[in-house]
Amino acid sequence: MKDGSESKISLVPYKGVRDFYPDQMSEQNFILNTMRKVAESFGYEEYSASLLEPSELYKAKSGDEIVNEQTYSFTDRGGREVTLRPEMTPSLARMVAAKRREIPLPLRWFSIPNIFRYENPQRGRTREHWQLNVDIFGVSGIEAEIEVISVAREILRSYGAKDEMFEIRINNRALQNALLSSYALSETDKKNVMKILDRKDKMSHQEFEEKANVILRSNAPEFRKLTEARDIDGFLALAPEAVRQSQGASEVRELMKVLKEGGVTAIFSPCLTRGFDYYTRTVFEIFDTGENNKRALFGGGRYDDLLDIFGAEELTAFGFGVGDVTMRDFLETYGLLPKNQSSTHLYICVVPDTAFSAVNRASELLRQKGVNVAVDFSNKKIGDQIKTAVRKNIPFTMVMGGDEFGSGRFRLKELATGAEETLKLEDAADAILQKTSSAKT
Amino acid sequence: MKDGSESKISLVPYKGVRDFYPDQMSEQNFILNTMRKVAESFGYEEYSASLLEPSELYKAKSGDEIVNEQTYSFTDRGGREVTLRPEMTPSLARMVAAKRREIPLPLRWFSIPNIFRYENPQRGRTREHWQLNVDIFGVSGIEAEIEVISVAREILRSYGAKDEMFEIRINNRALQNALLSSYALSETDKKNVMKILDRKDKMSHQEFEEKANVILRSNAPEFRKLTEARDIDGFLALAPEAVRQSQGASEVRELMKVLKEGGVTAIFSPCLTRGFDYYTRTVFEIFDTGENNKRALFGGGRYDDLLDIFGAEELTAFGFGVGDVTMRDFLETYGLLPKNQSSTHLYICVVPDTAFSAVNRASELLRQKGVNVAVDFSNKKIGDQIKTAVRKNIPFTMVMGGDEFGSGRFRLKELATGAEETLKLEDAADAILQKTSSAKT
Repeated sequence: MKDGSESKISLVPYKGVRDFYPDQMSEQNFILNTMRKVAESFGYEEYSASLLEPSELYKAKSGDEIVNEQTYSFTDRGGREVTLRPEMTPSLARMVAAKRREIPLPLRWFSIPNIFRYENPQRGRTREHWQLNVDIFGVSGIEAEIEVISVAREILRSYGAKDEMFEIRINNRALQNALLSSYALSETDKKNVMKILDRKDKMSHQEFEEKANVILRSNAPEFRKLTEARDIDGFLALAPEAVRQSQGASEVRELMKVLKEGGVTAIFSPCLTRGFDYYTRTVFEIFDTGENNKRALFGGGRYDDLLDIFGAEELTAFGFGVGDVTMRDFLETYGLLPKNQSSTHLYICVVPDTAFSAVNRASELLRQKGVNVAVDFSNKKIGDQIKTAVRKNIPFTMVMGGDEFGSGRFRLKELATGAEETLKLEDAADAILQKTSSAKT
Repeated sequence: MKDGSESKISLVPYKGVRDFYPDQMSEQNFILNTMRKVAESFGYEEYSASLLEPSELYKAKSGDEIVNEQTYSFTDRGGREVTLRPEMTPSLARMVAAKRREIPLPLRWFSIPNIFRYENPQRGRTREHWQLNVDIFGVSGIEAEIEVISVAREILRSYGAKDEMFEIRINNRALQNALLSSYALSETDKKNVMKILDRKDKMSHQEFEEKANVILRSNAPEFRKLTEARDIDGFLALAPEAVRQSQGASEVRELMKVLKEGGVTAIFSPCLTRGFDYYTRTVFEIFDTGENNKRALFGGGRYDDLLDIFGAEELTAFGFGVGDVTMRDFLETYGLLPKNQSSTHLYICVVPDTAFSAVNRASELLRQKGVNVAVDFSNKKIGDQIKTAVRKNIPFTMVMGGDEFGSGRFRLKELATGAEETLKLEDAADAILQKTSSAKT
C-alpha cells in the first residue's frame, strides 16, 4: 500500500446518494424523529423489512415506469432476482398478508425505510431517500381517512408549520371511475385519461385539451369543465346524473364535511390521482403552497385490494407516504429547521498533564447524571481546546486541572452567552441538563 | 388482477434477511437505541452514508474473502460497478478523508448502519445485519483505547449485563509483527501465520501444530508456547529479546495497567488478530463467556493507515464494531431483553355509536399531554375491544361513551394488574405517563 505506485481511490460517493456528516445527521434525525413521535402518538407501531426483496414483488402492482426503468435489480450469487425496494407498500402488504389471521385489527403501522430509485438526480430528487409510511388496516369507514390525514397534518404542525403553508387536497378514485364509466370508455382509454389527469399540471393548457379531445371526443368539453371545478358541489352540479348518485360522490362529501367539523380545511381536487395502481377510493395529498417549492409533500389513499396479489383475502387499508428530501426542502424554505447543535452537551478541556484517571472519574459522574460528555485529550492550550468545542457546536465547556480537583468545583462556560460559573459537578450537571433540554422543546 | 388465472406472489421474504413485525422492531429499537445513548454519552456524534458505494472502495483494504465471495455487487443502469456495503469502515474513511482539513480533532463518530454479506444464513449470521461502529480519530495515545473500550463495556452494562458474562481480550499487532520479524519470515509467511492464529479456536490442536511446523520450522515449538501464554508477562518471559524490547510490548503493558487502575479486567490474548488488513497496533474483542453463545460480541482496534488508500495524510484511529444479531443472542441468552410492550400507552374502547368527533377531541387532549393513544373504531362490544388491546400489549385501556362525556370522567384500566380508576382526562394522562415512563427505566 505504501509504494506510491498504486492509483488512489476516489473520495466521491456513489452518484445521487448522500453522506450524512454529523451536522446533516442531526437534521435528518430531527426530521425523522418528529415523524416517528407523531405516528406513535396516534397509536401507530413501527415495523421494518429488509431493503432486498424478490423482484417479483414489484411486478404485479407498482407502476410500469418504476419496475421497468427505475428499480435497482440484479441477480444474486445464488441466481435469485432481487430488487432494492423502490417503495415500502409491497413489503408491508407481504408482511400483513403473511400474518393475516394472527394480527388483531385495526392494525396501525408505520415505518421509515430508505428506498432506492434509479432517477436522474436533481433538487428534491435523489437515488436513495427515506420515506415515512403510515397505514391503517381493517377500518373501512372514513374514521381511517380522518385519522391518517390528521397524522400527516400533525407532523407538519409539530415542525412548526402554519396552516397557510400547505393545502390538503382530496379526490376519490370511485368518483373518477363513475365519471369515466358514464363516458363508456374502454379500460385502456380509462387508464389514458388517468394518465393525463395525473400530469395535467405538467402540460400546457393546449396539450391537455388536445389529449382529452382524442380520447373523450364529444365528452371532452364537459370533462374539461369538470377538471376545473374548485369544490365537490360545483363538480357534481356539472357531472352526469350517474356520477352524482355514485358512492364516490357521497364519500367525498362526507369526508369533506367531517374534516370541516374537526377544523381541518381541505380542498376537492378533481385532477388528483396519485399514480395509477393501488388506490381504490379516497386519494389525498398535502401540497406545499409556497412559491419556491410547489410540490406534494404527502400522498396517499385507500387501497383495498393489495393483499389480493398474494392470494390473501381482502383487507381495507388507508395510508400515506412522505419523503425526507421534500420535507427537508419544505422546512428549509420556511426556516423551520432548528439551528444545528451537537448531541454532546459538554466538552471537557483538560489542563495539560492532568492525571487521566481523575478526568475520567469526573466524566463518569457527569455521564451517570445524563450529561453527554466529550473529553479533549490533546494536551493543547485551554484556549485552543475551547475553540474546538465552538467548532463542534457543543454548548458547554468545563476546565479540569489540578486546582479544580482540589476544590471539587469546576468552571462551566456556556458558549452561546459566554456566561461562566464555578460549580460542583452535580450542580453543573443539573445546570447543563436544564439548559439543553429546554433548548430542544 | 382479479381473473384468478395469474400465479400468486410468494409471501416469503428474500433469503437470509429479516422482517421486523412491531414486536421484533421494538426489541431492535431497544438494542440499537441503547447503543446510541451510550455512544452519545461519551460525546460521539452520529453520521451515516448510503448503503450503495462504488465497488472500488472495497478492493484496497477489506479482506479477500469479503470482496471476492461475500459482497453484493452489481452494475447499475449507468454502467457503474456498485456494492452494498459489507462493512462501514471504508465509507467512514472516505468521509473523513474528504474533509480531513475541516474537521476539528479529536473526532468522535458513531453510526448504526445495516450491512450486507452473501453468507450462508445460520444462527447468529444473516445476510443483512445492523452494526454499531464507534471510532475516534486524532488521538494516538492509549486514552483513545481506554475510552473506546469503556464505551463497549458501558453498552453491555446498560443492558444489565454483569462483568462475569463477558471477557475483554487484548492483543497488539505491532507485538505480533515484532515476533514474526524475529523469526525472519517472508511477508507471505507472516500473513499465513496470522491466518492460523485467527483460526486457532476453530482448528484441532494437531492441525494447528502441523500448520505452525510447516511455516515456522525450528521456531514452531517456541511459537506454540507463546500462543498459550495467559498474560503479557508470561508471554514476554518466553519471547525473544527483540520482542520484549518492542514498542508493541510496552503498549500492551501500559494498556493493561491503565485498564486495571480504572477497575476494568482485561485479558492478554496472544492469538487475537481480528482479521487481517486494517489494524496496526492494539486489537481487542469482548467475548461472551457463557456456554451457549461462545463468540465475540465486539471487535476492534487501532488502524492508523486507512486514509492512505485515498492519498490523504495519515490520521490515527481507534474503533470497534458490534452487530445487532450477536447482541440479540447474547441478551436473549442472559434474559436481558425487556418484555415486549407496545409504544402505544392507551387503547380507547369506544361504546358503539358514540360520536366520532367527541372521541377525537378527547384523544387529541391526551396526545397533547404526551400520551400515545390508539382508538378502536370497530363498533364491537367493549369486552372484545379490550381483548384487542391485550393482544397488542398495550398497557392501558379507557372506555368512552355517552355517560363518560357527560361527567368528564373516564374509566382507566391497567391491563397488567386489572386495577381500574375513574378519572378526569388530565389526571388519567398523568397516571399513564408516570407508569409507562417508570416501566422503561
